[in-house]
Amino acid sequence: MFFIEKLIQLIKEKKSVVCMGLDPRLEQDDQIPEFLKKEFKHPDKIILEFNKQLIEETHDLIPIIKPQIAFYEKYEALNALKETISFAHKNDLLVILDAKRNDIGSTSAAYAYSIFKNFRADACTINAYLGIDGVRPFLDYKEKGIFILVKTSNPSSSDFQDLFSTKLPNVPDEEIEYHSKKIILQRNYIAMAELVRDWGSDLLRFSNFSNLGAVVGATYPKELKAIRNIIKDSFFLIPGYGVQGAKAKDIKHGFSDKGLGGIVNSSRGIIYAYHKDKKYSPTNFSKAARDVITNMNKNINKEIGLV
Amino acid sequence: MFFIEKLIQLIKEKKSVVCMGLDPRLEQDDQIPEFLKKEFKHPDKIILEFNKQLIEETHDLIPIIKPQIAFYEKYEALNALKETISFAHKNDLLVILDAKRNDIGSTSAAYAYSIFKNFRADACTINAYLGIDGVRPFLDYKEKGIFILVKTSNPSSSDFQDLFSTKLPNVPDEEIEYHSKKIILQRNYIAMAELVRDWGSDLLRFSNFSNLGAVVGATYPKELKAIRNIIKDSFFLIPGYGVQGAKAKDIKHGFSDKGLGGIVNSSRGIIYAYHKDKKYSPTNFSKAARDVITNMNKNINKEIGLV
Repeated sequence: MFFIEKLIQLIKEKKSVVCMGLDPRLEQDDQIPEFLKKEFKHPDKIILEFNKQLIEETHDLIPIIKPQIAFYEKYEALNALKETISFAHKNDLLVILDAKRNDIGSTSAAYAYSIFKNFRADACTINAYLGIDGVRPFLDYKEKGIFILVKTSNPSSSDFQDLFSTKLPNVPDEEIEYHSKKIILQRNYIAMAELVRDWGSDLLRFSNFSNLGAVVGATYPKELKAIRNIIKDSFFLIPGYGVQGAKAKDIKHGFSDKGLGGIVNSSRGIIYAYHKDKKYSPTNFSKAARDVITNMNKNINKEIGLV
Repeated sequence: MFFIEKLIQLIKEKKSVVCMGLDPRLEQDDQIPEFLKKEFKHPDKIILEFNKQLIEETHDLIPIIKPQIAFYEKYEALNALKETISFAHKNDLLVILDAKRNDIGSTSAAYAYSIFKNFRADACTINAYLGIDGVRPFLDYKEKGIFILVKTSNPSSSDFQDLFSTKLPNVPDEEIEYHSKKIILQRNYIAMAELVRDWGSDLLRFSNFSNLGAVVGATYPKELKAIRNIIKDSFFLIPGYGVQGAKAKDIKHGFSDKGLGGIVNSSRGIIYAYHKDKKYSPTNFSKAARDVITNMNKNINKEIGLV
């Protein structure tokens, strides 16, 4: 089954566009609870147990999870990642592997194999600075989902993504000044959005959406609206909700009037919520996560009109 | 010891700026030789043996190697990667882990830990589409080297990197058209080069070079020259030599008159050279690699003036 078709089905069934980010952190006591570290000792086992409890407690409320592979690499816990994905599938959840991979064609193919065949993720994030060469090997897995970074949620995303850019096809560099008198400039994230739109133009559609999506930070609502005006038929993966500061109203413009078109990720704000409210003991971390998700669903669904 | 200091020392000692790319491929018979696949069976063991023989045969001729992590991920051979890096260090070689990682700050820190602490690489490649947030956690490892993608060697690098861009600080989007009458446009790879220059401005220098480098494809000699005009004090990692089509004269402008300033990578052109010339049997694959490197050193050193 195609990723996007299954995603839309789960969103409608579970009445949720929330994506739970599984970013395991072991260093501090406001992260993965001490009792799990003591009981399971090895990072691979601690993280898997943490993720399993979160999934068991929340899977009926969300369509999808997003493990961030950087943390599994840091703790040399790739086995926990693989088993988490398998456990998520058994619990009727889709999985985006957040990997932001990018390379020239033949190397991108190796990354795509790792993500879709070894880890069996349903979708992944990629960085398209290298152009279509590095994207095509992922698109070759036709049933899988891809989210290309367009406007990221971090403060310094402006350094490069907000530069003004334009296309002047086949103009020698020496003539730029002349041509610049007649052109309209737009920001780099808009240029990237146009590439995503163009690369996705021939793909199959389900409920109007293709398997090629975009990453747009919830922390930039104005940019989200501008990007939605460019890309009509892609799902947006919208990170930055919660700890990074974005609220329900900030993500509204990513969605169609039927409440479709986006998934809203929160990682730390969900999985380490137990630490922010004294009514939860560390052993109740997954209950705290469930309560945060229930609230997110309520606030977001009201804003986007998902009923 | 700082990466760039050690690199310059090895370049002078070995009279070479060649980087051997270790991209293991197991599928076809013009890749890793059959006899190794039969003898060692498991990908982890096959790849490690292949790499070790290459390193043993060539380490006196080159300063550095560059494993591409995508292939080790594909074959689930991360142990071979780790042991290859350790073996390279024992053989007086530096190691760039080609990983092109990128993410928001706290996640980038996890990637940096994996690359520098777990794998013990001396340097790595990163993608700076997300801006300085995602770069800083790598710079925090002050002794390590970093190469930021500026102009990549693949054909579609033009899709995004060749767009014309400009900075219009603090200008509202509505006023762009007005301002565009007075500005000079430049290509995105130049904008990225300027960021690399600025981010590296306060770093320590050795023989005029800092630990912050750039990736510039040998397949784009004109662009290489333009980028060198922007970034004076960074080493360039120059891929694309050999199978991707670039020749010795194409890389000249990446170097200073003393033959410093760059390393030239070839992967398939070196490690699978045995298959291109009937005088080599598959068991002589590492001898074929040595002969290609000897030739590369001769041709490149003449061009860049390394004596």
